[in-house]
Amino acid sequence: MASNSFGDIFRIVTWGESHGKAIGVVIDGCPAGIELTADDINCELKLRAPGTNQYTSPRKEPDLAEIYSGIFDNKTTGAPISIIIKNQDQDSSKYEPIKNLLRPGHANFTYLEKYGIFDYRGGGRASARETACRVAAGAVAQKILDKFDINIKSYIKNIEDLYQKITELKKTGDSIGAIIDCKIENLPIGLGDPVYQKLEAKLANAMLSIPATKGFEVGEGFAAAKMLGSEHNDLFIADKKTNTNHAGGTLGGISTGMPLEFRVAFKPTSSIKKTQQTIDLNGKDTNFTLPAGSRHDPCVAIRAIPVVTAMARLVIVDSLLMNKVIKI
Amino acid sequence: MASNSFGDIFRIVTWGESHGKAIGVVIDGCPAGIELTADDINCELKLRAPGTNQYTSPRKEPDLAEIYSGIFDNKTTGAPISIIIKNQDQDSSKYEPIKNLLRPGHANFTYLEKYGIFDYRGGGRASARETACRVAAGAVAQKILDKFDINIKSYIKNIEDLYQKITELKKTGDSIGAIIDCKIENLPIGLGDPVYQKLEAKLANAMLSIPATKGFEVGEGFAAAKMLGSEHNDLFIADKKTNTNHAGGTLGGISTGMPLEFRVAFKPTSSIKKTQQTIDLNGKDTNFTLPAGSRHDPCVAIRAIPVVTAMARLVIVDSLLMNKVIKI
Amino acid sequence: MASNSFGDIFRIVTWGESHGKAIGVVIDGCPAGIELTADDINCELKLRAPGTNQYTSPRKEPDLAEIYSGIFDNKTTGAPISIIIKNQDQDSSKYEPIKNLLRPGHANFTYLEKYGIFDYRGGGRASARETACRVAAGAVAQKILDKFDINIKSYIKNIEDLYQKITELKKTGDSIGAIIDCKIENLPIGLGDPVYQKLEAKLANAMLSIPATKGFEVGEGFAAAKMLGSEHNDLFIADKKTNTNHAGGTLGGISTGMPLEFRVAFKPTSSIKKTQQTIDLNGKDTNFTLPAGSRHDPCVAIRAIPVVTAMARLVIVDSLLMNKVIKI
Amino acid sequence: MASNSFGDIFRIVTWGESHGKAIGVVIDGCPAGIELTADDINCELKLRAPGTNQYTSPRKEPDLAEIYSGIFDNKTTGAPISIIIKNQDQDSSKYEPIKNLLRPGHANFTYLEKYGIFDYRGGGRASARETACRVAAGAVAQKILDKFDINIKSYIKNIEDLYQKITELKKTGDSIGAIIDCKIENLPIGLGDPVYQKLEAKLANAMLSIPATKGFEVGEGFAAAKMLGSEHNDLFIADKKTNTNHAGGTLGGISTGMPLEFRVAFKPTSSIKKTQQTIDLNGKDTNFTLPAGSRHDPCVAIRAIPVVTAMARLVIVDSLLMNKVIKI
Repeated sequence: MASNSFGDIFRIVTWGESHGKAIGVVIDGCPAGIELTADDINCELKLRAPGTNQYTSPRKEPDLAEIYSGIFDNKTTGAPISIIIKNQDQDSSKYEPIKNLLRPGHANFTYLEKYGIFDYRGGGRASARETACRVAAGAVAQKILDKFDINIKSYIKNIEDLYQKITELKKTGDSIGAIIDCKIENLPIGLGDPVYQKLEAKLANAMLSIPATKGFEVGEGFAAAKMLGSEHNDLFIADKKTNTNHAGGTLGGISTGMPLEFRVAFKPTSSIKKTQQTIDLNGKDTNFTLPAGSRHDPCVAIRAIPVVTAMARLVIVDSLLMNKVIKI
Repeated sequence: MASNSFGDIFRIVTWGESHGKAIGVVIDGCPAGIELTADDINCELKLRAPGTNQYTSPRKEPDLAEIYSGIFDNKTTGAPISIIIKNQDQDSSKYEPIKNLLRPGHANFTYLEKYGIFDYRGGGRASARETACRVAAGAVAQKILDKFDINIKSYIKNIEDLYQKITELKKTGDSIGAIIDCKIENLPIGLGDPVYQKLEAKLANAMLSIPATKGFEVGEGFAAAKMLGSEHNDLFIADKKTNTNHAGGTLGGISTGMPLEFRVAFKPTSSIKKTQQTIDLNGKDTNFTLPAGSRHDPCVAIRAIPVVTAMARLVIVDSLLMNKVIKI
Repeated sequence: MASNSFGDIFRIVTWGESHGKAIGVVIDGCPAGIELTADDINCELKLRAPGTNQYTSPRKEPDLAEIYSGIFDNKTTGAPISIIIKNQDQDSSKYEPIKNLLRPGHANFTYLEKYGIFDYRGGGRASARETACRVAAGAVAQKILDKFDINIKSYIKNIEDLYQKITELKKTGDSIGAIIDCKIENLPIGLGDPVYQKLEAKLANAMLSIPATKGFEVGEGFAAAKMLGSEHNDLFIADKKTNTNHAGGTLGGISTGMPLEFRVAFKPTSSIKKTQQTIDLNGKDTNFTLPAGSRHDPCVAIRAIPVVTAMARLVIVDSLLMNKVIKI
Repeated sequence: MASNSFGDIFRIVTWGESHGKAIGVVIDGCPAGIELTADDINCELKLRAPGTNQYTSPRKEPDLAEIYSGIFDNKTTGAPISIIIKNQDQDSSKYEPIKNLLRPGHANFTYLEKYGIFDYRGGGRASARETACRVAAGAVAQKILDKFDINIKSYIKNIEDLYQKITELKKTGDSIGAIIDCKIENLPIGLGDPVYQKLEAKLANAMLSIPATKGFEVGEGFAAAKMLGSEHNDLFIADKKTNTNHAGGTLGGISTGMPLEFRVAFKPTSSIKKTQQTIDLNGKDTNFTLPAGSRHDPCVAIRAIPVVTAMARLVIVDSLLMNKVIKI
């Protein structure tokens, strides 16, 4: 149902392909009275933009968001907020030669099988470009979180080591994965809902919806599988805090007030500058080579950092709003 | 919204506390014409039942499901299927002495903070008992998957080693975590939906909604973060297959036809037979000791195996049905 | 989707057939801390019960609701509230002779065509018995409305004239329709949401989901079609009131604070004690006669009065809760 | 929830204010492979456009829809279809003088009370301009209905008499209501879902979401309230047809295959060229006069004809798709 939509109360729908006129997002359910300008969104989009550092793809594209609705006197009115980002780098002729090939690690195969039709000029809805819309919506969400002093930070540990590897990979044309850590501070106690709407279940859902993700863990995560209960249990001390935070900020799916900490695993970029064996749409063996002039991101995870933050913002703002209806 | 509900088309809502009269699940959206008897459900419930082996909690409870609606002549009618499992082991008096203590690793703290009220006789909705309802609904879902020969298997690798550890832990009163692997075979190509309803995003959501889970990964998962693109990319060969399956069965969130493989991390059981430091509801330091006669599961993951299977069934059946509306 | 479910935040799912073991409703999303006992529900069920006056069907059935979950110390906990009403009058043998006939005005034809299977022992999910579950859920909703002094009253105008007609119809075996008026007083300004969730759109949806309904109108309703704007416009006077209430309590789909007034049209009962021409499942011409001993309600609208109230309660409580998330 | 969204599978979200840059609609859930061009949409928009005849408001505005996404080679791809209609007549200065007055029959009062903020330049989301987006989405829906030869027609009975009255009302500056009839032919048997998703319940919801509507009735509607069962019951004859169609095309909320017939009541236009008594935002008595140069539609129902059709299309296409998942 509505697979391009996310969230329950603060609900977004994103649209657009990387080689169409524009991409965009509509937020249906943003509370009224929040101060918001296009600048608030464009600041965040800059963090995600390609070509902003030497380690990511060189596509030069301003990614300028315009707000088309839902704002009056620089405040949200409760009406849907439509944000549109025009595409500027729309030359898709280079995709012509590879349009009949299954691209290793790409979704053109599964989309074609599922829908019987695929816009081969770029990655269609599987394109990372769609994530710009998430960042835009996340920027709006943060304006609400600001009122609660909730702060979300995403980062890659040992980023210097990674950058060094990337310098090498740019020469070989290969790519590499990475893990993004996210830490949410100052979260009120009580966010998240029991059973199927646990806070970590919503975050896992949000994170695994980001292209190229392969895993999610909260608190000790997979390491918890080897721990003893006496090691893992966080003990309650004064002020409703715990002496440790192995749980990572939730109990029973509901925030404890301790920092919420999770990690997201990203696979290496599928598009590499190496010839790979594949088949064409008729099942014939052939080779796949990235078209000349194609962008090459040796590590998609770097540009995904603000996307992880954005998705976390969307989950948290939705949980905050949802928490207003559990008592009269 | 509706945090006790799961699924879009094949939608369930579960209800009940471990110390009430019964627990149950209503399935709203099961297709008509599926053969179904209570036996189909009870077979599966036996796998989850406590006390079926020496490694899990000794609670003796038959967990007998009764179907109250939605069946005629042993076939589903398209009407909601109400399944009720009576509780038999309802003595909650032993919880009295600990009702004012925050239980380490438990949700009574967060529930109280959130709702201002908590049924301390057992774990309320955070109790693992709720998962019996998931298993029951999953048994119904499997009847549909059977028609497509879709087979879902969950297991713990090196289960013998784990069992050996458990024997020791039963003596010390401690507990341990574990990882459950799940493999889905014979999945049609094309299940899962783009962007926010990716198959792995739905599975991650489903798995992290199971009590005591701390992580989810698909395919190479977290290991993919250290791989090169040239290592990780699965290459297409004849018959729309790939030579490897690092992706774990999806591309762009849509099933590839290769086996779907994922893993779920479980923390060690929070209830241990060791005295732990805590505070009471007034914030006063005190100790927490499990009441005499309390059940002790040294490794909750063992009983969670059929729950992982059940949640996977629910996700897959929903995706199968959803896939019927993407083309006319 | 989930066609047996109603509401967004205060969400119910009803289940059960008139000739099964029981019927029931699960409320997923009732706020915590509301005082509630089974008596609160059973008081309301009595109003709907058959056989309580000489003008409705003589089925003697106590309709005793039991609360199976979601309550602790007589207060809601925020967990799903499962309410079960056992069926006592389950003799369905009399339906055997007519099981292959299309019943005039009944849904057995459309259900069979749609699902390929139909539980002919009673009306299946189309049975008016399902509405007992709505009344039960509505009784819970009213406990919340009580805190806001919101009062909902449904009634039939000129009920004495109707009763006189019914006395005659009991002799002839025929039936008659009626219109139920509903008035909601003390509604806060601001309930209902713009565009697709207008308060009257939700009410229209709720009312037309009641069996045997054929129309809904708010304020002047169909009469407004013949009025001039200068006659119909309500003029604002002091205290945010209007001098008249032709609109019926909403503007732009949002409550004005004036009484909300709407009407629901019910068709005459389809089951009449007259032989009617029909066809059987093979398309052969035949006659349809109600089995001896069948209940005969000359006017279903009478028993539907508390159902109209119940559905209005569900809409209003959902709108009240929804209204909590439109501002921070 | 998501009050600017409509539909379950074929789901739309509309956005935009009458005095912003543009309005638009995103369709999330349109099946793949449907032929679609902007022309298909613009043909329909012309029917709704203001200024196309002397009986409606003279605003000259082309209402030109552009498709921004979801189409490849003139076919839908299964991705969200974003349709944008630029606003051209954006002069809102005339609203300045009345911005502090409660407008009789208008929603600025309720919006202000609800949200604490209102874009007074036009009607905000309550503006009839929003309905252009419904017509655009409905045009897409019809492309699917065409494959099933489903035909939806909306009209006003005795339109000539109405036009005569309108000629008079244009002189007096007053307005009048009307009733729109809608007839859907060639509907397959089995559309609509039991209990809360009855076809007429969904239609009632859809119709009452149209601005200025006050009532909905199906089949005999309110007249059924005065009929006897023996008069109202449609009798089954050969070919699964009935000899009459008092029910109006559904039984138990599911389509019978007979023509679906319903009516929608519209109130007279609230904006009239007569001075009306009102109060300002401070509660002070004053007069309200429509600003010079304001458009004046003596009968909004005329322009609502294609909107009724559009909403019916959305309901029917959603029901058609939903009907694909009820059997395996």
